[in-house]
Amino acid sequence: MNIFVNLCIRAGLLIESEVFMVSDKMKDLLSGSSVIRAMFEDGKKMAAEFGKENVYDFSLGNPSVYPPEKLKSVIKELVDNIHPDYLHGYMNNSGYEEVRSKIAASLNKKFCTGFSFKNIIMTVGAAGGLNVILKTILNPGDEVVTFSPYFGEYRHYTENFGGKLVAVRPNTEGNFKPDIDDLKNTVTSKTKALIINTPNNPTGVVYSEEDIKNIAAVLKDKSREIGHTIFLISDEPYRELVYDSLKVPYLTKYYDNTIVCYSYSKSLSLPGERIGYLVIPDEVEDFEEMIVSAGTATRILGFVNAPSLMQLAIAECLEEGVDIKIYENNRNKLTAILDKLGFSYVRPNGAFYLFMKTPEDDKVFAEKAKKERLLLVPGSAFGCPGYVRIAYCVSPAVIDNSYGAFEKLADYYNLK
Amino acid sequence: MNIFVNLCIRAGLLIESEVFMVSDKMKDLLSGSSVIRAMFEDGKKMAAEFGKENVYDFSLGNPSVYPPEKLKSVIKELVDNIHPDYLHGYMNNSGYEEVRSKIAASLNKKFCTGFSFKNIIMTVGAAGGLNVILKTILNPGDEVVTFSPYFGEYRHYTENFGGKLVAVRPNTEGNFKPDIDDLKNTVTSKTKALIINTPNNPTGVVYSEEDIKNIAAVLKDKSREIGHTIFLISDEPYRELVYDSLKVPYLTKYYDNTIVCYSYSKSLSLPGERIGYLVIPDEVEDFEEMIVSAGTATRILGFVNAPSLMQLAIAECLEEGVDIKIYENNRNKLTAILDKLGFSYVRPNGAFYLFMKTPEDDKVFAEKAKKERLLLVPGSAFGCPGYVRIAYCVSPAVIDNSYGAFEKLADYYNLK
Repeated sequence: MNIFVNLCIRAGLLIESEVFMVSDKMKDLLSGSSVIRAMFEDGKKMAAEFGKENVYDFSLGNPSVYPPEKLKSVIKELVDNIHPDYLHGYMNNSGYEEVRSKIAASLNKKFCTGFSFKNIIMTVGAAGGLNVILKTILNPGDEVVTFSPYFGEYRHYTENFGGKLVAVRPNTEGNFKPDIDDLKNTVTSKTKALIINTPNNPTGVVYSEEDIKNIAAVLKDKSREIGHTIFLISDEPYRELVYDSLKVPYLTKYYDNTIVCYSYSKSLSLPGERIGYLVIPDEVEDFEEMIVSAGTATRILGFVNAPSLMQLAIAECLEEGVDIKIYENNRNKLTAILDKLGFSYVRPNGAFYLFMKTPEDDKVFAEKAKKERLLLVPGSAFGCPGYVRIAYCVSPAVIDNSYGAFEKLADYYNLK
Repeated sequence: MNIFVNLCIRAGLLIESEVFMVSDKMKDLLSGSSVIRAMFEDGKKMAAEFGKENVYDFSLGNPSVYPPEKLKSVIKELVDNIHPDYLHGYMNNSGYEEVRSKIAASLNKKFCTGFSFKNIIMTVGAAGGLNVILKTILNPGDEVVTFSPYFGEYRHYTENFGGKLVAVRPNTEGNFKPDIDDLKNTVTSKTKALIINTPNNPTGVVYSEEDIKNIAAVLKDKSREIGHTIFLISDEPYRELVYDSLKVPYLTKYYDNTIVCYSYSKSLSLPGERIGYLVIPDEVEDFEEMIVSAGTATRILGFVNAPSLMQLAIAECLEEGVDIKIYENNRNKLTAILDKLGFSYVRPNGAFYLFMKTPEDDKVFAEKAKKERLLLVPGSAFGCPGYVRIAYCVSPAVIDNSYGAFEKLADYYNLK
């Protein structure tokens, strides 16, 4: 603030308009900044105070399972054998063609698709990919629809480009499956895209093939009705994290105008590396223009390209994965505790989150839990009050040790 | 486009409004997309056709000098010895504290500054850093001033947040030094920031301490006059690439509200890795809020954090550099050719660019040069027609071999 404004404030004088150094939007944001990230910082502080083993930090989706062992040797071999011009150099904004080709081939093998390198754009994680595709398609005032509960960042990503996020109501009576009726009510002539996220953050719910078909049918009907195509944006960082032998249908096969945002953050446990890709199939309307635009968006948003060494590294690990049995066991451990203590929740089949009903206001409940050194994120952060998200990507010991804290809460609310 | 629109177009019917899949802004952009990047793609195609050694590609600022040898062993040691949770994991959106501390200490040692980790925010290159800081400070309608010629991406970065880039006229009579008088005329009550870039892309000019003092004086006066602070954003990816024993003054010492955008793309030859940082000094107005906002902007723009392994790697290479003697020799080789053939230019002292006057319209000239397989970027792309940029970060042989092509152009225009 300038000196004049500062003096006025100190003097208790009302002034007509204050001049802030940060933008008005950022000012608004700071008051409601990411609950999840704030919890992450709280968790670090509490761990320093009470010891890491005495804080039951279920706040952040930070993978607890190791990346594939092969990654180490791949990185070392790349560093030893690839010319630095290539290994650390500029390439097309959409990424190395050889990497994009390998990803396309791997997808084709897994899902019987027909992609080539042209359909793949390497991105700075799925967060980067979502921003790139939203920049590509959104005009100010356009609406982006998503199902509640949803990853809170979707709102920011949409607003980055003057769009508005509109949420379909949470299907609390239907195990958080997509509420198709309310989807129909929510789409308007301003709708440009629907973002779906299966396996879902924060519920861990996996949509069935029937769910996908129902969604596709609505989008087809509504696109015809409103006179322009609605894109289906599939945010799928948790695709590989699925339990109980469930399959996650590959979305591009059900709806032509599907764009896939993928990330290796969870599937290879590399969240800090910011590496992922977009799939823009040939069937997407105005395909050529979409592809060029997405490459251009990658450039002008300041990503420029996905990190080069990591592009080449993941290209050698496409058939690798992480040990998801560890997450599945964690889920089983956690649900056993919650069942025993009388908490209500929807049993998750994917990702590493569980969405638990709270016996009172979710923010109040989360504060109470924090006093027991139990860090949970209020459902309000996901557009679904009355629940908390439990990220069970932690060491199994954390779940075991958290029993006492959950028990205290159960006792307090007389759940048993 | 939807079927109706498509049919209308095929039928040659005029329709009131077309529905495009990509946004209106992207549509506009595609027509005027990056000349530099287009040249890069042209260069690749021509190299495939004529052989790499027969294409004199001076179009892209892709470092031709190797990264420090130490980087290899550093990466391999990190992979072997650091726990993957930490090496590839999430951290604070602003980056690892240990990395930020090391960078602060290294700056303090080099420039007698007093930074701590709190002043440093790790970014996805300088392009990421510029977007983060512009997101942090710009309200729609705000103006960002820069000196012509300027890196064309500044316009996109500014417009990403509803701002407007306003250029100070190129000082063609004064060796492209900042035109202080025109700076005074260009600042208005809407000015929120001035971006400077020294050593400069595309001229290679390095501002003197006196230039910096003059700029700071204008910003101080104008900030007082318009009633709010104007930020000085110093985009300095070329800081380390300086010849003839010149010094680049450290900007934060001359103007309190300075924000530095740094990148290792050129200083360590790692442009594909997207790693850099912002410096936000304590002296910046509303410091605490600025820092939190910049971290938040990093998150919500989809960067999330700078790539983790590369953060830790560069932290071990802060006292390393690349062999800039190679660039200096390239400059000398190139200027010798241009001098001999009678071309006019301003002798560059930094970066790896030379800005050459064109005997006719710069775009026409660049097309003629392309016929000689000589790839140069028209000055129009930098807001300064009548010149071309020659990026001499190439192998010395390319410069030697390009003599014939330059000679043909000189003959064509009767320069001698």
